[in-house]
Amino acid sequence: MKQVKIFDTTLRDGSQGAGISFSVEDKMKIAAALDSFGVSYIECGWPGSNPKDEEFFKLAKNKFKNSKLVAFGSTRRKNIKPEQDESLKKIISSGVKTACIFGKSWDLHVEYALKTTKEENLKMISDTVSFLKSKKFEVIYDAEHFFDGYINNRDYAVETIRAASDAGADIICLCETNGGILPLDIQKIVTETKKEFPDKILGIHTHNDSGCAVANSLIAVESGCQLVQGTINGLGERCGNANLCSIIPSLQLKKKYQCVPGKSLKKLTELSRYIDEIANIVPTDSLPYVGRNAFAHKAGVHVSAIDKNSKTYEHIDPKEIGNSRQILVSDLSGKSNIISKADELSLDLENKPEKIQSIIKAVKEKENNGYQYENANGSFFILTKKLETKYDSFFTLKGYRVSVEKNADGSIVSEATVKLDVKGKEEHTVSEGDGPVNALDNCLRKALIKFYPEIKTVLLTDFKVRVINSNANTAAKVRVLIESKDNKITWGTIGVSENIIDACWQALTDSVEYKLLQNNKIRSIKR
Amino acid sequence: MKQVKIFDTTLRDGSQGAGISFSVEDKMKIAAALDSFGVSYIECGWPGSNPKDEEFFKLAKNKFKNSKLVAFGSTRRKNIKPEQDESLKKIISSGVKTACIFGKSWDLHVEYALKTTKEENLKMISDTVSFLKSKKFEVIYDAEHFFDGYINNRDYAVETIRAASDAGADIICLCETNGGILPLDIQKIVTETKKEFPDKILGIHTHNDSGCAVANSLIAVESGCQLVQGTINGLGERCGNANLCSIIPSLQLKKKYQCVPGKSLKKLTELSRYIDEIANIVPTDSLPYVGRNAFAHKAGVHVSAIDKNSKTYEHIDPKEIGNSRQILVSDLSGKSNIISKADELSLDLENKPEKIQSIIKAVKEKENNGYQYENANGSFFILTKKLETKYDSFFTLKGYRVSVEKNADGSIVSEATVKLDVKGKEEHTVSEGDGPVNALDNCLRKALIKFYPEIKTVLLTDFKVRVINSNANTAAKVRVLIESKDNKITWGTIGVSENIIDACWQALTDSVEYKLLQNNKIRSIKR
Repeated sequence: MKQVKIFDTTLRDGSQGAGISFSVEDKMKIAAALDSFGVSYIECGWPGSNPKDEEFFKLAKNKFKNSKLVAFGSTRRKNIKPEQDESLKKIISSGVKTACIFGKSWDLHVEYALKTTKEENLKMISDTVSFLKSKKFEVIYDAEHFFDGYINNRDYAVETIRAASDAGADIICLCETNGGILPLDIQKIVTETKKEFPDKILGIHTHNDSGCAVANSLIAVESGCQLVQGTINGLGERCGNANLCSIIPSLQLKKKYQCVPGKSLKKLTELSRYIDEIANIVPTDSLPYVGRNAFAHKAGVHVSAIDKNSKTYEHIDPKEIGNSRQILVSDLSGKSNIISKADELSLDLENKPEKIQSIIKAVKEKENNGYQYENANGSFFILTKKLETKYDSFFTLKGYRVSVEKNADGSIVSEATVKLDVKGKEEHTVSEGDGPVNALDNCLRKALIKFYPEIKTVLLTDFKVRVINSNANTAAKVRVLIESKDNKITWGTIGVSENIIDACWQALTDSVEYKLLQNNKIRSIKR
Repeated sequence: MKQVKIFDTTLRDGSQGAGISFSVEDKMKIAAALDSFGVSYIECGWPGSNPKDEEFFKLAKNKFKNSKLVAFGSTRRKNIKPEQDESLKKIISSGVKTACIFGKSWDLHVEYALKTTKEENLKMISDTVSFLKSKKFEVIYDAEHFFDGYINNRDYAVETIRAASDAGADIICLCETNGGILPLDIQKIVTETKKEFPDKILGIHTHNDSGCAVANSLIAVESGCQLVQGTINGLGERCGNANLCSIIPSLQLKKKYQCVPGKSLKKLTELSRYIDEIANIVPTDSLPYVGRNAFAHKAGVHVSAIDKNSKTYEHIDPKEIGNSRQILVSDLSGKSNIISKADELSLDLENKPEKIQSIIKAVKEKENNGYQYENANGSFFILTKKLETKYDSFFTLKGYRVSVEKNADGSIVSEATVKLDVKGKEEHTVSEGDGPVNALDNCLRKALIKFYPEIKTVLLTDFKVRVINSNANTAAKVRVLIESKDNKITWGTIGVSENIIDACWQALTDSVEYKLLQNNKIRSIKR
C-alpha cells in the first residue's frame, strides 16, 4: 500500500485561526489525541516565540509515542550566522528531534518582506538547513508561497528548494500559502517539480481561500507528494488550512493510500468533535465525512433506497469514519452509538432492544433541548439509570440561592445556600466561593459530605460554558459541561438551561451523583 | 471572453439543507437578489409539489428581467405517457419557459429506486424531453448520479444522456449526486464525455461530501462544461451543494470566464450575507472570498508584509468581491497589527511610536490575564482611550448584587440591583431577567437610560462564555464575549474574571461605553 505521511499543524497554523486561543493544557490534550490517532507529525509551535509555547515544549518532551513532535521556525535572519539566531537556538534546545523551517520561495517576498537579495535568501535557506542537520535534526523545509513564486519566477522558486534539498532537508513541503491557486495549476506545478526532484520526498500545504484546499492536497498527492500538512476540521487563519478530516478518509478509503492506522479511521469523527470542544467552537454540521449532517437523509425515496442498498445515496459507509447515518423521521439513528457508549460504561444492553429504544427516545428528547452526551458520559449513565423502573436519588433539592455582590471598592462576595433532603433529613448549608459556581459547589459538598464521605475525593477539573442558541426571538440557552475526577477515573456531566446558574447546578449534581453510583454499584443494581 | 452559465439552485436543492425553510416571500426576495446579481438561471422549485411552490410560480411569473426562471421535475413515471404525468403537466402550466428534468444514469438506481428495466428508463428520459420540447420549453437534462453510473456501467450512463440529447435537450448537466467523486476522476470522466458530445452544452452539478464540490466544478469547466449548478453559500442537503460564491470569483477573476456581469462581482459578499440573513443562518466567517475572516490577518509577520504589498498574503484584492481586510489583535500580533486595527477604528496612531508602545504593553498585559481582542473591537477601543491622560467614564459603579433563587417546585427567579454614580447623581435600580446576565443587563440599562437615551438602540446579539484556565491550582478564569449592535454598526466587548458574573458585567459595561463613546466623539476628543 502506498504511504502518505500526515503532518498535523492544528497546534501551530490552526491556532492562528480567528477566535482560537489554546492554553498549554489544551495543547497537551490535543497532542495526546493526535498521538493516539496516529498522525506521523505533530507541529507544536514556535519554541520561544511566547511563554506558552515554551512551557508546552517542556511538558511535551518524551510524552508521546506514535507521532514525532515538530518545532516550527523560520530560516535564520539575514546577514547573521545560524548559530547566532535566537529562534534557531530555541529550536535546538526545544527537546524535539524534528524541525519544520519555512523560507521564502517567492521573489516578491524576498524583496518586500525580507528586504534582502535573492542570493542572501538562498544562503539563509541553505545555512539554516545545514545547521539543523549538523545538530542531528530531521528537517522538513516549508517552501512558503512556492506556487505563487513558481508562477512569478519559476527558476528562482525551484532554486530555493534546491538550496534546501542540497543542504540535506529530509522533506520539501510545497506551500500554497495564500490559498489562491486552483486545482489544475497545482497539478501542473507539482508534477513539474516532482520531475526536478524525483528522489526527494515532497509535501503539500494548502489553504482554503478558494475553497479548494482539500482538492488541492489530494491532487498534489496524486501528482507525487508523499506528505500532507493540514489541521483537524480545517482550523486556521482566514478560510482555514486543508482539513485533514476530509483528506485522510478520501486518501485512505478511496485512493488506497495508508495515512493513519486502519483502526484510527473509525475514531475520526470523535477526534473532530473533541478538537472543536477544546477549541470551544460550535461544530459545523455540514463538514464532509465527520459533520453531524454528513449522512443525514430525509424521509421518502432516499430512505427506502438506502434500506435496499446504502450505496444509492451514501458515498461511503459512515461507520468507516465513526460517524452515523441520520434518518430524520425514524429512530434508527444513533443505535450503534448508544450500544457502543453503553459498552464503554459497562451498561449491558446486548439483546435488550426495548431498553435501547427507550434510551434512544430519551436521548433524542434531551438533544432536542440542547443536551449533548459526547463529552458527558456521567450524565448519560445517570440518564439510562433513571429509565430503570426504580431509581432512588441520593438526595433531593428543596431549593438553592446564589448571590454575587460587588462593592464600590471592587471587592466581590459570592455566596450560595442549598437546602437538600438527604436520606430523610433536611440539610441547609451556606458557603462562599471564588465565584457563584464555586460557591454552589462548595455548598453542595458541605450538605452531602457527612452522608457520603466518598465525595471528598472528587475534583472538578474542567468547566465549559457555551451559549447554544442566540436567536433573538427566544431566550438563549446555556450548556455547561463539567469534567470531574477522583483518584481513579474522569467523567463528564452536563446541564442545559436558560439560566446559567441552573445549568451549572445540573452538571454539578450529576457529577456527584455519578460518583455515588460508581461507589454504590451493588446498591444500584439491587433496585 | 469564454462564457460559463451560472445556474442557481438555492431555492430548490439549497432549500433541502437541514434547518432551511423558505417562505414564499423569502423565495421572492432571493429570486430578486439573484436576478439583479445576474445569474443565467434561477431554479425555483417543483411546480405543484406543494402549495408554497405553486404560489411562488404564480407570483414570480414575468417579474424578473436578467435570469431565466426554471421549473424542476423528474422524468415521467414508468409505463405512462408524458402527457398523463401530473408533475409534467404542472411544469407546462407553471408559466416559465425552461425546465430542468432529472433522470437516472446509474443502473443501480434504475434497479433499486425505479424498479424498472434499463430500456424503460431510456424511454422515460427520451419521452419526457421530447414532450417538453414539443411544448417549446428550453430543456436542461440533469443526469442524476452520472459519475457513479459512469464508473459502474459506462456504456449505460452514456446511453442515458444520449437519449436526452437525441430527444433535443438543450443542455446536459452531469450530476455528482452523492458527492463522493474526487477531482481527477471528475476530470477524466468529463473529458471523455465531452468527446462523446462535442457539440452539446454540458453542465456540472456537484455536492460537497468529500469537500471537493468547488474544485470539482472548476475542473469540470476546464474540462469542457459550460454551465455550473450550485447554491449561494453552498446551502444544501448533507454537506451542501457547490458554493457559487467560491466558484464565480475563481472562474471570473482567475480563469477569465464571464459568469456574471463584471459589476455584479463587487456585490458578491453582500449577496452571500443577504441570503444567510433570509435563511436565518449565522454566516460562516471562514467562507472563501465572502466570509468575514476571509481576509483577516493575525500573525504579525503577515500584517507587516501586507502593509508593504497586499499581494504578499492575499490571493485577490478583497474589494473585487465587495469584502474587506480585517486585522486581528492577539498575542501573536506586533506593532503593525495594532496600527492597522487603530486605523480601522479611526484612532490616529501614525507617527506616535510611544503611544503604540503603550498600547502594545497594555494589550499584552491584558492578554496575559486572559483578555483577547480579536472579537472585541469595542473593548480594544476603550482600552486605548483609557490610556489617554484624561478619560472620564460615563458612569461609575458603586455596587451591584445579583441573585438566583430556585425553589422546591423548580421555579427560578433571577434578580439584579445596580448602584451607579452618573453625572454626579446616584442611581439605584432593580430588575429581574431570564437569568442573572439578562437581569444585570436590564438593570444597567434602567439606571442609564434617562441620562443616555441613545442606549435604547443597543441590542445584544451574541454572548459567548469560555473558561480559560482550568488549572487545578488556581481558580478558573472565565472569559465573556458579547456582541452588540445598534441601527448602524456591530461591536464586540470582553470581560475576564474568576467570577462569571463580574466578567459579564465588564463586557456589558464596555458595550454601553463603546456606544456612548461613538455618540460622543467630540466630547471624547476634547479631553
